[in-house]
Amino acid sequence: MKEMTKVVLDAMGGDNAPGEIVKGAVEAVNRRSDIQVILTGKEDVIQDVLKGYTYPEGQIEIRNAQEVIETSEPPVMAIRRKKDSSIVTGLKMVKTGEADAFVSAGSSGAILAGGQLIVGRLGGVERPPLAPLIPTKKGFSLLIDCGANVDARPSHLVQFAKMGSIYMKHVMGVQDPNVGIVNIGAEEEKGNALVKETFPLLKECRDIHFTGSIEARDIPYGQVDVVVCEAFVGNVILKLYEGVGAVLISKIKGGLMQNLRSKLGALLVKPALKETLKDFDASEYGGAPLLGLSGLVVKTHGSSKAKEVCNSILQCVTFKEQHINEKIKQSIQAETEPAD
Amino acid sequence: MKEMTKVVLDAMGGDNAPGEIVKGAVEAVNRRSDIQVILTGKEDVIQDVLKGYTYPEGQIEIRNAQEVIETSEPPVMAIRRKKDSSIVTGLKMVKTGEADAFVSAGSSGAILAGGQLIVGRLGGVERPPLAPLIPTKKGFSLLIDCGANVDARPSHLVQFAKMGSIYMKHVMGVQDPNVGIVNIGAEEEKGNALVKETFPLLKECRDIHFTGSIEARDIPYGQVDVVVCEAFVGNVILKLYEGVGAVLISKIKGGLMQNLRSKLGALLVKPALKETLKDFDASEYGGAPLLGLSGLVVKTHGSSKAKEVCNSILQCVTFKEQHINEKIKQSIQAETEPAD
Repeated sequence: MKEMTKVVLDAMGGDNAPGEIVKGAVEAVNRRSDIQVILTGKEDVIQDVLKGYTYPEGQIEIRNAQEVIETSEPPVMAIRRKKDSSIVTGLKMVKTGEADAFVSAGSSGAILAGGQLIVGRLGGVERPPLAPLIPTKKGFSLLIDCGANVDARPSHLVQFAKMGSIYMKHVMGVQDPNVGIVNIGAEEEKGNALVKETFPLLKECRDIHFTGSIEARDIPYGQVDVVVCEAFVGNVILKLYEGVGAVLISKIKGGLMQNLRSKLGALLVKPALKETLKDFDASEYGGAPLLGLSGLVVKTHGSSKAKEVCNSILQCVTFKEQHINEKIKQSIQAETEPAD
Repeated sequence: MKEMTKVVLDAMGGDNAPGEIVKGAVEAVNRRSDIQVILTGKEDVIQDVLKGYTYPEGQIEIRNAQEVIETSEPPVMAIRRKKDSSIVTGLKMVKTGEADAFVSAGSSGAILAGGQLIVGRLGGVERPPLAPLIPTKKGFSLLIDCGANVDARPSHLVQFAKMGSIYMKHVMGVQDPNVGIVNIGAEEEKGNALVKETFPLLKECRDIHFTGSIEARDIPYGQVDVVVCEAFVGNVILKLYEGVGAVLISKIKGGLMQNLRSKLGALLVKPALKETLKDFDASEYGGAPLLGLSGLVVKTHGSSKAKEVCNSILQCVTFKEQHINEKIKQSIQAETEPAD
C-alpha cells in the first residue's frame, strides 16, 4: 500500500472559507486515495459544509479549533494568544509529526510567523523563504523570497537559490532550473550592496544553475526559473505583477465596451481571451510554500477557490514523495563545505 | 517679447536618431515661438535630415560634436574621454548657461553620470533623482528615484519627495500631489530599515502631502501622485511595469488570433483597444527629468519617437517658466530648519 500524505487544511482561512476550502479538500481526496485531509476549525461549521459532498469517508477528518485568527491581527501576538485557532492547531500537528503539511488561505503574517515559531526551521536554514509561483510568457517561475523578513544577508539569498532550485526541479518538474538574481542591470558590477556581495557566492554554488542577473523587465518573459531577491523586492514584484495585470485588463475591458462596434467584437473575442488570460492566473499552480521548515507550510491566496486549495494539497504529496526537506538539508549542509 | 527657452537636444542618442529626434525638434519649434533648439551631434548628418523640414530658421541651430557615446560604454569613462560627444557638448552648454536644458534619448548611464559630473548639483541637494512618469488607471504618477545610485539614505528619500512634489505640481499641473513611500504593507511599523527610518521624516515634512505607505499593487491604480522609493526598487518597478505590460499585451494579441471567430472580433475591437492602450503609453508624457541639478537634464526613452522628443522639449519650457530649480532650492533649504 502506498504511504499516505497527511495534510492539515485551515478550514477557516481566506475570503471563501469554509465553503471553497472544504470543497477543495473533497476534490483532492476524490482524486487520490493516498491523501488524508484534516480540516481544522469550528467542527459544527465544517460538518455542515461537508454534509453536502460525497467522498471516501476515511480520507477526511475534522480537528476542532474554536478560534480564528483574522488577517488584521498582529501576527506574532495572534499566534501566541489564540492557541485554539485553526492556524495554531494545524501548525502544531505538523510540528508533532501528526501531519506532513499545513495549507492555509488565512493571515499571511500569522502563517509566516507561526511556521517559524511553531514548526521551526530545518537545521542549517537561516531564514525560511516564502516562494510563490508567478505566471510568465513561458509558464511560471518561482519568486523567492516574498516573506515577511526583509533586509536579508547574502547567505540568506544563497540558501533561497538552493531551496528554490530543489523545489522547481523536484516538485514542479523543471529540469535543471535556471537561477537569476534580481538586479538593475545585467553586468556583475551593477546592483546594490546586497546583490554585489551575493553575486560571486551564487557563481560559486555547485548545485544550482546560476545564469547571473535578471532585470525586472525580463521576469515576465520567464527568462529564469528561480528568481532570487530579498523579501522587500520580492513583495514589490509580486504585488506589482497583480496590480499592473489587473489595471491593464480593466482598461482592455473598458476599451471593448467603448462603442457598438467594439461591443460586437468583444462578444466574438471573449472565449479566446478568457482562455489566454487563464494562463496568466497564479491559482493554476497552487499555493506558495514556506520553505526550509521541519515540515511543509503552504500559503494559498486569500481569494483561493476550491481548485487552488486542491492543487495545493496535491503539491504537498509531491513534496513528501520527493523528500524535499531531506534534499534541502543536504544542499544546505554542502554549503558549509569549501568548493573545489 | 517672451523669454526664450533654450534646449540642447542630443541628435545622436536613441534608437531612432537622428531622424525622429530632429523631427521632434522641428515639431516643437513649429508649435511655440519661444523655444530655441540646439541640436548637438555630427553637423553634416543633422543638416541632411533638417533639409527635409520647414521651420522658423532662427529657432534651430546645430552645435557640431563628432563623437557618439554608445549605450554599451562604461558611463563615467565615456563622459571623461569623449569630450567631443553630443552628450558632453550638450551638458556643458547647460553648465555654462548657454542653454537651459539638455534632452537626450542616449545612454542613460552617461546622461546620469554626466548630469552630476558636468552640470553639477543644486546647493543642498544630496543626490539628483531620475523621475519618470508612469501610466496609471487615473493618468500618471511620478516614480522617484529610478537613477543609477542605489542604497539611498533616508535624507535622500525626503529630498526626492520634495522635489517630486514640486515637479508634479508646477510642471505637470497636479494640485496638492499626494506622496506615498513604497512599502510591503500599509502600517507604519512595516518595511525595511530604510523605509522605517524615512517614514517619520516624511510625516514631519511641512511642504508635501504625505499619505503614508503605498503597496506596489496600488501603484498602477494611481493611488498617489509621487511614488517615493530608492533607485533599486524604482528600477524594478519601472522595468516590471514594462515587462508585465508587454507580455500581457502579447498574450492578448495571441488570444485574438486564436481562431476564425476571435480573428473576426479582433478586427472590430482593434481601434477601441488601440485607443485605450494609448493611455498606458509612457511616451505621451515626455521624458524623465533628472532633478536637483543646476540646470535641467531630461532622459527620454531609448525608443523615443518625434512625439516624445517634442513633449520633452515643451516640458523644459514649463520647467523654466515655473522656476522649478528656485523652488527646489527653497524647499531643500527649509528642510534644515526645524519644524514648528
